[in-house]
Amino acid sequence: MAKPSKFVIPRPDPPNKSEDGIYTAGFLLEPVPEGSNRGDCGNDKPYRWIWVITCAEVSLAKIMEGKKLAEEIKSNVKQKVETLNGMGVDVGLALMLVGNNPSSRQYLSAILKACKSTGITSYEYRLPESATMNELLNTVHEINRDERIHGLLVFFPLPRRINSRKIVNSILPEKDVDGLGSIPIGKFAAEESTFQLYSDSYRPAITQSLGFLPCTPFGVIKLLEYYNVEIKGKHAVVIGKSLAVGKPLSLMLLTKEATVTVCHKETKDLADMTRQADILCVAVGKLALVTGDMIKDGAVVVDIGINVLENGCVVGDVDFESVSKKASLITPVPGGVGPVTIAMLLENTVKSAKARI
Amino acid sequence: MAKPSKFVIPRPDPPNKSEDGIYTAGFLLEPVPEGSNRGDCGNDKPYRWIWVITCAEVSLAKIMEGKKLAEEIKSNVKQKVETLNGMGVDVGLALMLVGNNPSSRQYLSAILKACKSTGITSYEYRLPESATMNELLNTVHEINRDERIHGLLVFFPLPRRINSRKIVNSILPEKDVDGLGSIPIGKFAAEESTFQLYSDSYRPAITQSLGFLPCTPFGVIKLLEYYNVEIKGKHAVVIGKSLAVGKPLSLMLLTKEATVTVCHKETKDLADMTRQADILCVAVGKLALVTGDMIKDGAVVVDIGINVLENGCVVGDVDFESVSKKASLITPVPGGVGPVTIAMLLENTVKSAKARI
Repeated sequence: MAKPSKFVIPRPDPPNKSEDGIYTAGFLLEPVPEGSNRGDCGNDKPYRWIWVITCAEVSLAKIMEGKKLAEEIKSNVKQKVETLNGMGVDVGLALMLVGNNPSSRQYLSAILKACKSTGITSYEYRLPESATMNELLNTVHEINRDERIHGLLVFFPLPRRINSRKIVNSILPEKDVDGLGSIPIGKFAAEESTFQLYSDSYRPAITQSLGFLPCTPFGVIKLLEYYNVEIKGKHAVVIGKSLAVGKPLSLMLLTKEATVTVCHKETKDLADMTRQADILCVAVGKLALVTGDMIKDGAVVVDIGINVLENGCVVGDVDFESVSKKASLITPVPGGVGPVTIAMLLENTVKSAKARI
Repeated sequence: MAKPSKFVIPRPDPPNKSEDGIYTAGFLLEPVPEGSNRGDCGNDKPYRWIWVITCAEVSLAKIMEGKKLAEEIKSNVKQKVETLNGMGVDVGLALMLVGNNPSSRQYLSAILKACKSTGITSYEYRLPESATMNELLNTVHEINRDERIHGLLVFFPLPRRINSRKIVNSILPEKDVDGLGSIPIGKFAAEESTFQLYSDSYRPAITQSLGFLPCTPFGVIKLLEYYNVEIKGKHAVVIGKSLAVGKPLSLMLLTKEATVTVCHKETKDLADMTRQADILCVAVGKLALVTGDMIKDGAVVVDIGINVLENGCVVGDVDFESVSKKASLITPVPGGVGPVTIAMLLENTVKSAKARI
């Protein structure tokens, strides 16, 4: 049958995406065999609109640029530091590194750079791997007493023989800008300090209640909000239950009224859980733990994992290539959560300095 | 067609349970119309085995008798109290009730009875609804200083104008036997005090780390363990995220290595979540929130809800009749979690007295 010159069929809406995550971006008018399932629009005429796949490798996901948000936070921090300087206050952050862990050293140098760019004075305390518990405690006590210093970050992991919790808990809560001591954790879990998740300016009736929020999960929440991700009512799945990330992040997402599922190494069918996630946060430290087939179409994926490859490259826990084809928003590694974590550390330090005036 | 006298078809395995939760307990040999879906065994002969429903109201669930476990714990407490008495220590528990809330009064009288039966001396502090914040704080300070008293329970809800967190946080952590102050919550969330979930006898290297675990969720864990419910690797769904129950229970289940999902009023499809639960814990205070159709076959269901009906009867959040037909284990209300909560309060009080020797 010859193609009629004036055969008008309404153009159907293009499908958003085919099942294998591939976009359609054009259409043709051509004869389609009866019973064809090649996307015909259901018209029973011999000529039909059909959608033709033209872009086979289009990534759906928008990148969540942590760097960009971090720059905004740091520029805000810089202003506050200048104001404090004008009041005769020099803002100080102590950084305590025990031993020579390469990723801790990398993190340290990134923080030093960020301090410099915002006008915060950094104080490095480097102790040998062989340092005793008493030496570490004395260093913390010294920092606690030092009025020049408003915040202290201890790098993890500490040597195995050291009781990390004892060190962290010896930091004065008002200087615990990483928020991992049991007192800030308790204020946070009891929702006494979670007001900070809602607004920077709001102060609770009892100002003593201020306990700093852990920087990494706090940064994740900030990043989600920066990209207008609605948290309330969504199903957030967190992989990892560490004290520094997975657990506090789960509690923060719960405070923000997400339905929260926490998965970990004992979870039986991880993919079954991740496929339910509107928001998936991965903080394990296992290469390619999460792949595209484990993701719901349009999910928001936050990769908090850090894995150093043999060639020195740093990658996350999420297989970016396959996951970015299904997610609507995804963080890169590096340049995702990392820079925001550092920015939140500086913000907490400035808050501490302000509270001490 | 006449029924042949020697027409042998292998007898199929009986279905465990039909979809509506009804047991099959017999079978018949009879003609079945072609295309019938009445449980035919797929044999293409005109005569087939079909399963006949004979028991329509069989309950599958075994009851988790909280009362029984509570009696065991209290008998253990009684022995410890006697030992302490022999050392010249009288174990004391203070109970602070503000106003006249009927369910608090009911709870108070149950605790008084339990104290009497175990030899713990109770000290009642009843304040009027109109009591000021300062009066409440002074009462707590008085109790904190009183060497006769090893534990203090404040009944909730406090009058609305009172900042409950300030009251709870004014209790000395070592006397906070309900474990809801931000210090014990923090020690618990930071996994410094969670060793108590594993063994009564084990003491951590740093004994100062002892913070009491909140009684209700602690009691739920004890009850699950009493009935040999495996928690590790199971999917536990908790409905409710209150500070007293839902949130600490979720953290405890996480410590015990369950995959944990926390649902609440913002959860979009509650039934979709509950149907995934191997262990379902409900702590909302909403009558018949959970019904049989929301339960996975063989799930363990813990009902922590308390609802007082017009006729004065107390029921939980779970529709016992329909849920007990699908669950493998279920707590009744009353007589489930409630008595265990009180037993745990007494156990924490004795622990406090022992730690003070």
